Amino acid sequence: MHYEQIKVELLAFLTPEQVSDNDIIRAQHGQDESYHVPALPDLVVFPRSTQEVSDILKIANTYEVPVIPFGRGSSLEGHIIPYNGGISIDFNEMNAILAIEPENLLVKVQPGVTRSQLNQALKKHGLFFSVDPGADASLGGMAATNASGTTAVRYGVMRDQVRDLEVVLANGDIIHTGNSAAKSSSGLHLNGLFVGSEGILGCITELTLRVYGIPEHEVAGRAVFSSTNIAVQAVTAIKHAGIPIGRVELVDPASIRMVNQYSETDYPEQPTLFLEFHGNEAGLQQDIEFATEILQDFGCSHIQFESDTAARNQLWNARHNLAYAFIHANPGKKLMSTDVCVPINELANAIEFARKELEVSGLIGGLTGHVGDGNFHALIMIDLNHADEVTRAKQYNKKIVEYALSIGGTCTGEHGVGVGKMEYQQQEHGNALAAMKAIKHALDPKNILNPYKLI
Amino acid sequence: MHYEQIKVELLAFLTPEQVSDNDIIRAQHGQDESYHVPALPDLVVFPRSTQEVSDILKIANTYEVPVIPFGRGSSLEGHIIPYNGGISIDFNEMNAILAIEPENLLVKVQPGVTRSQLNQALKKHGLFFSVDPGADASLGGMAATNASGTTAVRYGVMRDQVRDLEVVLANGDIIHTGNSAAKSSSGLHLNGLFVGSEGILGCITELTLRVYGIPEHEVAGRAVFSSTNIAVQAVTAIKHAGIPIGRVELVDPASIRMVNQYSETDYPEQPTLFLEFHGNEAGLQQDIEFATEILQDFGCSHIQFESDTAARNQLWNARHNLAYAFIHANPGKKLMSTDVCVPINELANAIEFARKELEVSGLIGGLTGHVGDGNFHALIMIDLNHADEVTRAKQYNKKIVEYALSIGGTCTGEHGVGVGKMEYQQQEHGNALAAMKAIKHALDPKNILNPYKLI
Ligand SMILES: Cc1cc2nc3c(=O)[nH]c(=O)nc-3n(C[C@H](O)[C@H](O)[C@H](O)COP(=O)(O)OP(=O)(O)OC[C@H]3O[C@@H](n4cnc5c(N)ncnc54)[C@H](O)[C@@H]3O)c2cc1C
Ligand SMILES: Cc1cc2nc3c(=O)[nH]c(=O)nc-3n(C[C@H](O)[C@H](O)[C@H](O)COP(=O)(O)OP(=O)(O)OC[C@H]3O[C@@H](n4cnc5c(N)ncnc54)[C@H](O)[C@@H]3O)c2cc1C
Repeated sequence: MHYEQIKVELLAFLTPEQVSDNDIIRAQHGQDESYHVPALPDLVVFPRSTQEVSDILKIANTYEVPVIPFGRGSSLEGHIIPYNGGISIDFNEMNAILAIEPENLLVKVQPGVTRSQLNQALKKHGLFFSVDPGADASLGGMAATNASGTTAVRYGVMRDQVRDLEVVLANGDIIHTGNSAAKSSSGLHLNGLFVGSEGILGCITELTLRVYGIPEHEVAGRAVFSSTNIAVQAVTAIKHAGIPIGRVELVDPASIRMVNQYSETDYPEQPTLFLEFHGNEAGLQQDIEFATEILQDFGCSHIQFESDTAARNQLWNARHNLAYAFIHANPGKKLMSTDVCVPINELANAIEFARKELEVSGLIGGLTGHVGDGNFHALIMIDLNHADEVTRAKQYNKKIVEYALSIGGTCTGEHGVGVGKMEYQQQEHGNALAAMKAIKHALDPKNILNPYKLI
Repeated sequence: MHYEQIKVELLAFLTPEQVSDNDIIRAQHGQDESYHVPALPDLVVFPRSTQEVSDILKIANTYEVPVIPFGRGSSLEGHIIPYNGGISIDFNEMNAILAIEPENLLVKVQPGVTRSQLNQALKKHGLFFSVDPGADASLGGMAATNASGTTAVRYGVMRDQVRDLEVVLANGDIIHTGNSAAKSSSGLHLNGLFVGSEGILGCITELTLRVYGIPEHEVAGRAVFSSTNIAVQAVTAIKHAGIPIGRVELVDPASIRMVNQYSETDYPEQPTLFLEFHGNEAGLQQDIEFATEILQDFGCSHIQFESDTAARNQLWNARHNLAYAFIHANPGKKLMSTDVCVPINELANAIEFARKELEVSGLIGGLTGHVGDGNFHALIMIDLNHADEVTRAKQYNKKIVEYALSIGGTCTGEHGVGVGKMEYQQQEHGNALAAMKAIKHALDPKNILNPYKLI
């Protein structure tokens, strides 16, 4: 292809360190943290400014070659794998925190800033950023996948945090999708459209995000149950009672075993809810009492609350490291994570179905879930050299997805589509898929931006 | 034009009462509740099902005539005025509440259902729908304008409530923009795009909306200040302290005078904040104590809280009827409402600017605002036969908008663009406007859906 010529043109405005065709660098940009088969980009570039991104896209548009935005490569559905080659645009050198505005509860950041880097900087202002996927992802990548995690039940998903994005379109145009006001009914709402667009509509070069005051008081807890089903029913009841829960996570016995091994905890190996409550001191106390009553009504056998920071951190770190615990315990195997989200009143049945089918499949794995939102994962470890295991895992994933779609749910609650969930797009979206394709074609007529992903 | 022929084709599947070219009916569909000049549609149709809407759009698409979706006609920027003639599609006969799902905190409704109709039905389930514009608008119209109101500071705007829309596209295709799960990262996010699209991308024929449990305890209050500026600063401080306020509205002395006349209250004619707090009993008490301290620190001269339902309703009805109070007190004049939204740290200055310029303009009007979000209105009464008054009002509106845009705000926080704010779209959105136009063209290539509005 034209990559030799493209490289020359890139070097007209980028330094030699910013453009690489080195094999190791290309390999690093050819795989994510999942079971999807790697593939190499032809070039990797490391822009340092929006203008550089715009100039890169103009060249790619002229030569009609793929560009694949790359954050931290922690996505789980092959999002960043360049199956058609092309230029991987790595945003890690655009990692400045541009402004912290405590009065507006807003920050402006470059896309390569990671969530932990941002939270570190916010702490001294008494603020935090709410979205917390299990990996230390980049904010650009999190916006591009509409990431969420344990706190979505209280603060919403990535899309709810985005006030404005600076985006470079396929033709090199630089646009803003929003503004700094708390609400707007002006123009078509591009913010919502670009969040979750997985790099197929443009490159995010700046984000204006909502942040929150660190709650006055926080209490975390663990509630242990005899059955997964009953634990989920207890969550539904807490939600229904209107208790404003901060986080609520289900961890099944197999996953608790992994947590205990990896994080050196000694939690009972039973279906467990990890919970968190936020608020002012008096309100929080009343919430916890009410929630405890409900948990006990559902036969919770053990319940323990922690308000000191160290104990709370231990609990949430253990939960966050769950996927890594599975990976660590299964050397040589790769992670597949299912990711459906279903209406809350269907959740207990859906998890029960997933649990039984996991047993039937004979695969190694565990169930965990952001159960306050109806989103849960089966974390499955598979040996890619073992064709039968791979087939069984894919069949299991398919069963879970089809069950979710049949009851009004979605094939992916937070990880996104990438290549892994493309086969379900027609089934999930029907006629709407044609509208999505028309929008993609209108904004990227040459199909250079992360082509053959998402839709 | 072809309207005689179109009428014949419509009558093939609609009853005679569903198709009208009567002058009075056409006139009713030729104006909204604002100062914008009316214009007549050629036909008005009253569909009763999604399939009928689809068939109407197919005919309009074939004949390339405009279709203008019509909810209650309460919009304030000429949204529904058929400046190019065409078919007004009135959704008032599609007004069924299709499902109430308390466990999922969701409802499914047809677009003609009004917010008061919905709240009436929800009450017996202990639920409510949060968005409350000052008019009893239709939910289809509210989604199409991304409406909000006094409760956005706590529950968000219309877009935050929409889980799924059934939409009929220009070609008659019926799509769903979302699903019933609490979150999803599947496909491009059409929900967000169609909310606020003012009928230019499709007709909404069904909505799946979030609802909330009626809070355990609610307390409303009034806090009276010596200056508007200081009242706004107090709000900023309450927000910054992280107190989860339910509503907070600014009403200036001129507006209080109107409220007192129209609603027979005797509130002191001074800058006033109307407030509301929600929560469990203990938490609420602590929030109110903390907020009261802050209000007093800012020199609040009088403060009164009401927890019984009748007193709270009186207060919020008085606030909701404010625009009607202005209209009632100024017979023969028409309402113009400015609607900017600015970053919170700019709000006090922006309102001060608007107050001074209102004085300078010599116009009749008052200032009021959803100050927790940085959104405020100057309600101005103008005599359309008085050219100079109209010019001064338009100039005033322009000054307010340009001020807001210069500090990172938006020309419309909640009313939308219609025809009234079109002149600011290029200035506000820059290059993004071309992307919006490309999306519109992709979905409605013949430009039949509410043409020459919004963008
Ligand atoms: C152990 C583990 C746990 C996880 N837990 C969660 C979880 O709880 N919740 C969750 O939501 N996800 C989770 N994930 C998935 C992953 O962390 C998220 O999808 C994350 O948002 C990806 O961010 P990234 O920076 O790694 O992006 P990448 O993987 O580099 O890219 C992801 C997508 O975004 C695009 N992209 C990246 N940067 C930009 C940009 N600047 N402009 C435009 N497009 C861009 C890419 O093209 C790609 O399509 C987990 C992953 C792992 C490995
Ligand atoms: C006194 C007064 C106070 C107000 N206060 C507020 C306020 O506090 N906050 C606020 O946000 N607004 C307010 N408004 C404005 C107005 O009430 C809102 O814009 C409301 O959302 C309009 O709803 P509607 O049903 O009257 O829609 P209409 O005025 O009939 O239509 C509005 C727009 O939506 C489109 N539309 C309508 N139905 C559909 C459908 N089914 N499918 C697709 N498009 C459709 C129309 O084409 C048009 O572009 C106020 C208006 C008045 C008169």
